[in-house]
Amino acid sequence: MSTSHTHRPALTLDDVRSVSPALASYTQKTILDDLWKRTELSPRDRSIVTISALIARNQTVGMPYYINLALDSGVSPGEVSGAITHLAFYSGWSNAFAAVEIARDIFAERGILFDRLPAALPDLLPLDEEGESRRAAAVHASFGDISPGVVHYTAEILFKNLWLRPDLAPRDRSLVTVSALVAMGQVAQITYHLGRAMDNGLTREHASEALTQLAFHCGWPCVFSAMPVVKEVFASRRG
Amino acid sequence: MSTSHTHRPALTLDDVRSVSPALASYTQKTILDDLWKRTELSPRDRSIVTISALIARNQTVGMPYYINLALDSGVSPGEVSGAITHLAFYSGWSNAFAAVEIARDIFAERGILFDRLPAALPDLLPLDEEGESRRAAAVHASFGDISPGVVHYTAEILFKNLWLRPDLAPRDRSLVTVSALVAMGQVAQITYHLGRAMDNGLTREHASEALTQLAFHCGWPCVFSAMPVVKEVFASRRG
Amino acid sequence: MSTSHTHRPALTLDDVRSVSPALASYTQKTILDDLWKRTELSPRDRSIVTISALIARNQTVGMPYYINLALDSGVSPGEVSGAITHLAFYSGWSNAFAAVEIARDIFAERGILFDRLPAALPDLLPLDEEGESRRAAAVHASFGDISPGVVHYTAEILFKNLWLRPDLAPRDRSLVTVSALVAMGQVAQITYHLGRAMDNGLTREHASEALTQLAFHCGWPCVFSAMPVVKEVFASRRG
Repeated sequence: MSTSHTHRPALTLDDVRSVSPALASYTQKTILDDLWKRTELSPRDRSIVTISALIARNQTVGMPYYINLALDSGVSPGEVSGAITHLAFYSGWSNAFAAVEIARDIFAERGILFDRLPAALPDLLPLDEEGESRRAAAVHASFGDISPGVVHYTAEILFKNLWLRPDLAPRDRSLVTVSALVAMGQVAQITYHLGRAMDNGLTREHASEALTQLAFHCGWPCVFSAMPVVKEVFASRRG
Repeated sequence: MSTSHTHRPALTLDDVRSVSPALASYTQKTILDDLWKRTELSPRDRSIVTISALIARNQTVGMPYYINLALDSGVSPGEVSGAITHLAFYSGWSNAFAAVEIARDIFAERGILFDRLPAALPDLLPLDEEGESRRAAAVHASFGDISPGVVHYTAEILFKNLWLRPDLAPRDRSLVTVSALVAMGQVAQITYHLGRAMDNGLTREHASEALTQLAFHCGWPCVFSAMPVVKEVFASRRG
Repeated sequence: MSTSHTHRPALTLDDVRSVSPALASYTQKTILDDLWKRTELSPRDRSIVTISALIARNQTVGMPYYINLALDSGVSPGEVSGAITHLAFYSGWSNAFAAVEIARDIFAERGILFDRLPAALPDLLPLDEEGESRRAAAVHASFGDISPGVVHYTAEILFKNLWLRPDLAPRDRSLVTVSALVAMGQVAQITYHLGRAMDNGLTREHASEALTQLAFHCGWPCVFSAMPVVKEVFASRRG
């Protein structure tokens, strides 16, 4: 079993109280006893939203607690593994590696071994050929001669491979993506990915409550900057 | 007394010099001997701006030095505590917890105990009922059916509670908020909060010099992206 | 020799595999065996792009590997030192200091001493007086009374000093800057700096492939948010 690289005892509410009794109180009353108990989104989905936000923002301090909570809330080790892999592409390789450092120790402590992890080269989900052709044509028309390399990997590695991996259901993969976009302030990319998320089965109610979850974990400004775009996407799908 | 989680000796100027003599020289001559001595903003206010930026950007490496400097420059422990609490909401819970890890050790070293910290549930400042009604109505009209949860907590926890806590004067609470928005590149949220800051008594001269302070601590691009919005806010209040 | 502040063994591909066999496979096949071998950009330039992105995003977990790789790929210690110094101004002082912590240990291990580092006060490259006058006049007209401090340091410290330091060739200094802007999502600043980069000799092909490199190291959203602006800059220089 590997030794820990990051060995830091988790922060306790008493630690928080020793700097800010108010912050400890908000954590208990507003987050733990209220936010997480709202029925608009399951604890499993809140966990997916939260760990996606933490990984996308490279916030290692909260990861031990929230990755453990995810595993206790019905997120499988394979889904944690899949979310980390997905976020390598959507928030940068180092963000994923920083999460690996922490998840590795958690997996070791819980006896989660190789046989419970998604295969490197699994059978892929079927490709929506027509949808992918449309997507690829649009990106090629816009950026084909701006960065051929980006356009190449976007098709071959992301949409014909990563997005077809079965370790995350498409709806959950989209939830990971949209959560990361809001968390990183990447507002311009929300339109496409929230639409895709809803095509993949994410309900408007779940998307709406994911924003509530993200407000606490990424801060109010991220969510207020995202809401106008979310509003447009919701409106465009109503008619 | 709690033991340190983060025990890293602070970086010295000699450490910096061993990688970049130029960076050590800029640090001494441009930041310590020049920027911090400009009279357009007090060392106390520069400290508030700087620790807000560091917490908002999760830059733990500079926090031990600048939290100590804040405490030596007239920022009270209660104000440090209040700023961390405020930034949990404005930059995300994990950012605040990462700052707690560091402030806890500093408070312990300085013998700052519970009795000098703001109460979890203090008497709140009076609410400007009319202003809050206007704010709440505007947000409800825009986003009431996009994310009811966000709209709920924005009113009940942020504007009817957090903003009324007496641990930070409203002008200072606004300075923390605006500094964090610039530092995070959350340009779209500056219009509202800089206006509110000036309503709360932040002068144009102080806001202007806060940008100078932020240029060094968040990088030039953050400040150049913020300046067009700051310019609009200044212009809109001139007439 | 100084002792390490950050002593963490570098993450191995086996560590990655213990959390995500897929991520380990992508790292080997897509990044190491494919991306880094593309001939559109040299390993030296890929290293400059990558360490700039890591420093700008404060991603210390990848720095030991990539700073060492840079030094093995033809980036000189003086150029690493120069990039860190430059990024203090373009991504914030603490980002540079976090990189110093790591580079210091690498320089010590490699026996890179003071005599191989750029001088604090070198002879500066000649100033393009006319170009700088135009730049300064434009910034002064826009922001001279919004933040006189920012405008002052932008001229005196950045463009009449930092940009004229000989430790980085102007083309490489621009590559560092543009990489950081894409990595930080500072899209509004790309127009000026990509134009300047191309004036400084960065080819369209190199800029294009830098985006491919950045996609993996900062995540797809950063690059897709940058591409429309890059497209405009390319178009404006075509006629």
